[in-house]
Amino acid sequence: MTDETPRAINGAESLVRTLVEGGVEVCFTNPGTSEMHFVAALDRVEGMRCVLFLFEGGATGAADGYARMADKPASTLLHLGPGLANGLANLHNAKKARTPVVNIVGEHATYHREYNAPLTSDIEGLAHPMSSWVRTGMSATEIGSDGAAAIAAARTAPGQVATLILPANTAWDPGTGPAPVPPIPERARASDDAIAAAVEALRSGEPVLLHLGDRAVRNEGRVIADRIARKTGAQLMAMTSNARIDRGAGTVPIERLPYPIDQGIAALKDFRHIILIGATPPVGFFAYPGKPSLLAPEGSTTITLATPEEDQIDALERLAEAVAAPPAEPVAVGPRPKLPTSGPLDQDTIGQVLGALIPEGAVICDESITTGRNFFALTRDAAPHTWLQLSGGSIGLGIPMATGAAVACPDRKVINLQADGSGLYTVQALWTQARERLDVVTLVWSNRSYAILRAELANVGALNPGPKALGMLSLDDPAVDWVSLARGFGVAGRRVETLPDFIAAFEHALANPGPHLIEVAL
Amino acid sequence: MTDETPRAINGAESLVRTLVEGGVEVCFTNPGTSEMHFVAALDRVEGMRCVLFLFEGGATGAADGYARMADKPASTLLHLGPGLANGLANLHNAKKARTPVVNIVGEHATYHREYNAPLTSDIEGLAHPMSSWVRTGMSATEIGSDGAAAIAAARTAPGQVATLILPANTAWDPGTGPAPVPPIPERARASDDAIAAAVEALRSGEPVLLHLGDRAVRNEGRVIADRIARKTGAQLMAMTSNARIDRGAGTVPIERLPYPIDQGIAALKDFRHIILIGATPPVGFFAYPGKPSLLAPEGSTTITLATPEEDQIDALERLAEAVAAPPAEPVAVGPRPKLPTSGPLDQDTIGQVLGALIPEGAVICDESITTGRNFFALTRDAAPHTWLQLSGGSIGLGIPMATGAAVACPDRKVINLQADGSGLYTVQALWTQARERLDVVTLVWSNRSYAILRAELANVGALNPGPKALGMLSLDDPAVDWVSLARGFGVAGRRVETLPDFIAAFEHALANPGPHLIEVAL
Repeated sequence: MTDETPRAINGAESLVRTLVEGGVEVCFTNPGTSEMHFVAALDRVEGMRCVLFLFEGGATGAADGYARMADKPASTLLHLGPGLANGLANLHNAKKARTPVVNIVGEHATYHREYNAPLTSDIEGLAHPMSSWVRTGMSATEIGSDGAAAIAAARTAPGQVATLILPANTAWDPGTGPAPVPPIPERARASDDAIAAAVEALRSGEPVLLHLGDRAVRNEGRVIADRIARKTGAQLMAMTSNARIDRGAGTVPIERLPYPIDQGIAALKDFRHIILIGATPPVGFFAYPGKPSLLAPEGSTTITLATPEEDQIDALERLAEAVAAPPAEPVAVGPRPKLPTSGPLDQDTIGQVLGALIPEGAVICDESITTGRNFFALTRDAAPHTWLQLSGGSIGLGIPMATGAAVACPDRKVINLQADGSGLYTVQALWTQARERLDVVTLVWSNRSYAILRAELANVGALNPGPKALGMLSLDDPAVDWVSLARGFGVAGRRVETLPDFIAAFEHALANPGPHLIEVAL
Repeated sequence: MTDETPRAINGAESLVRTLVEGGVEVCFTNPGTSEMHFVAALDRVEGMRCVLFLFEGGATGAADGYARMADKPASTLLHLGPGLANGLANLHNAKKARTPVVNIVGEHATYHREYNAPLTSDIEGLAHPMSSWVRTGMSATEIGSDGAAAIAAARTAPGQVATLILPANTAWDPGTGPAPVPPIPERARASDDAIAAAVEALRSGEPVLLHLGDRAVRNEGRVIADRIARKTGAQLMAMTSNARIDRGAGTVPIERLPYPIDQGIAALKDFRHIILIGATPPVGFFAYPGKPSLLAPEGSTTITLATPEEDQIDALERLAEAVAAPPAEPVAVGPRPKLPTSGPLDQDTIGQVLGALIPEGAVICDESITTGRNFFALTRDAAPHTWLQLSGGSIGLGIPMATGAAVACPDRKVINLQADGSGLYTVQALWTQARERLDVVTLVWSNRSYAILRAELANVGALNPGPKALGMLSLDDPAVDWVSLARGFGVAGRRVETLPDFIAAFEHALANPGPHLIEVAL
């Protein structure tokens, strides 16, 4: 700049500097007029990568995927109430996954709100249901410290969606520079009573389940849980949906509570004690007539060893010590699954291909829904990798989450296992993968239906559905052409209808960096 | 059915029958497990057309477009809090347009909510900001009357978004059959004081603006306002954004308040009195540093003749009588605009083509944003048609609104004037146009940028933007290929880069029923 007068820092720049100095280095965004000063500040502050999406659900889902892999929050930047609204479904998923997100929402200037301009809405009201912390900035001199408070809130264990609303004048008025992030509270320790209750259950001689979630389900926790299991005969099981599981060859294997209500009840029926370690009590994903909401068998006891907010690793260590668990043993590495050489292209052979071809260090984003029910088991002995799931049940996370994970992990291959109906909610995020040259392979399970709902019709007792009802579950008229959609967004795509073609296309995509999409005909 | 036992009607069927008997004949939906009983009831109740969308924002935007044309509400059917969240941005637009919508949101069974299953969220909290009426059903025996109350709320003038939350057990438990819709309150009459104040302004000899919105801006209101203007010298002006204007040859022409802040202030600067008839006070779409929020000149008076809730036609009639306005005169029909025969493909020639080719009775859904600033003037003398605008400023309405308008008006051609950046928010609604064989021509203005934000950067004083900021406004890397997107969703598409090609493609689309998309290179 040739202007020699020192330029006053404005609120937006104070906020962006606060974010960068607070470790928030990526902003996933779809901005509008009220956010232009934040956007302009990006060129005056080093260290913030700004990633554009065509739709806000892409930005919020990417913030979820990023933070699950980076173990620290990204920020979003959304445009007023409607922009926030478009991002809420994936913020719901982030909240349920306990992902830290610094969710920034632009707003009209404070003095303009009373005039009820077309884009005016109750942004705080919209934010509360999907946020654990909400604050509206009041002035440019405080917006830096507001941002610092948002970072602290987001990073408070186990991770929170923290929504900071940014009125336009708090961005353009003179600011006071970056603010330091206040201390993040440590995770609380599990109580001695909780340890004692778990010890008593483990010594009862009755069947015990160690139900793992949050940090306990990552391999560090599973190693300790496995020591306890070897000593006591307890079994390990993960929740149905998990924010992140690092798994594959050399890690402690773990199964998940099945999604279908009858299978879920059956999986738990023999346990007399369920010990929750970072997990929440097993409940039906939905209510079903005549079936219980709580899946634990009647007469069983449920013990909370450590909540998701508490230090689960510490609790597991203390429990292991209390039961005199043996030291950890290396996990035997079985043979790597073999590529199937023949057969139909179906859920089983696809799972076998995944088991054989998942490359070491891959990040798997799993929104397979019905198609993927066997994939977890069939990839147990695959090369070590990380598995991210849809945690809040709000479909449309896969493509955005894969995008954010790829931003967080540029050296790891990201593989998105994508149900077709779900992927269509936020398909626009493919464009961001192309724009950012991200190394993502999207495998679309093209069954051209909301297959899960066919089973759920019967599960909820809506029997003998007629043609109108079945029509609401069908996506085959017209058939969605994913290869064209991918091309439209700048991503190379291919449709495969046989097992050899799938293997060849997947191997090609794995070998060539950049985004690829494979529509797998089922 | 061979079962001879009379089948008990359940809550879902009670609700669907209530809707149909209450005149709600279309349901725009993306359902999930908790809505399966409602879906199943569709086959047992005659008279409800159910239209499936791949994303909820399509369903809510279609409900807006439908009701603007049908002058009665459709229903939606959305899946729990996240499904509602995905539909909120277009419900915001509907709320600002004062469109009646019966917005139905599935919910967990009442007894299941306390278990905090993954899809649990505060649905009422989400609904309130974008709804004027919210109720959660408590039992299957009351869900019919809840639905009837929702219809009445939606139809209460000037039109409201009424959200009915439908717990799964209120759908599957035994119901009591359809409930009658309670009486809809009449619109209130404007006060005599308001008439007197308007008369005084009109007799002051000072410049007066008749600012028209809601029903007053439709041709019925404009005819009366024109009588008043001819007597008093007052001028007519519509709001910047209008839910519906019936216009074209033979109707009373009207201009709109310009969107750009400086042009808006300039358009009002000479008026001493602004009389609001169904319009809200003119305010800046956004706040801009150093510019006023209220656009009326200082020292002017603003008089509310009739609010959007009041009977504007009655108020205009009374005002016309009070000033002894002359009777209505037929509007002189000018020559139909001529097709341009040469020139570049730009905003002016496109506007001329629209003026020449808009067919009689067409419904124009205008989400042109920057590209369309001249279209309104250039189509003033086109064949009679109806013009629908983005009313709440939440982009992504065009494709859904066109879809809903086409469902409401199967005998009218629907033409969607679509900015590219905006259209990408809800592009999935193209699939519904193909599935329902709707007669919609989508014209995409492909400038591959958020062009409006380039101007807004300067307007808000964010000068000298750097490459990162400008990058957030650019959609050219990769260039979105709209023809491929359309093909992916089953819609015939074509890209045109010259004026003759545009004319030929548009004429072809107008002559051939069914959905078409033309990507117009700018």
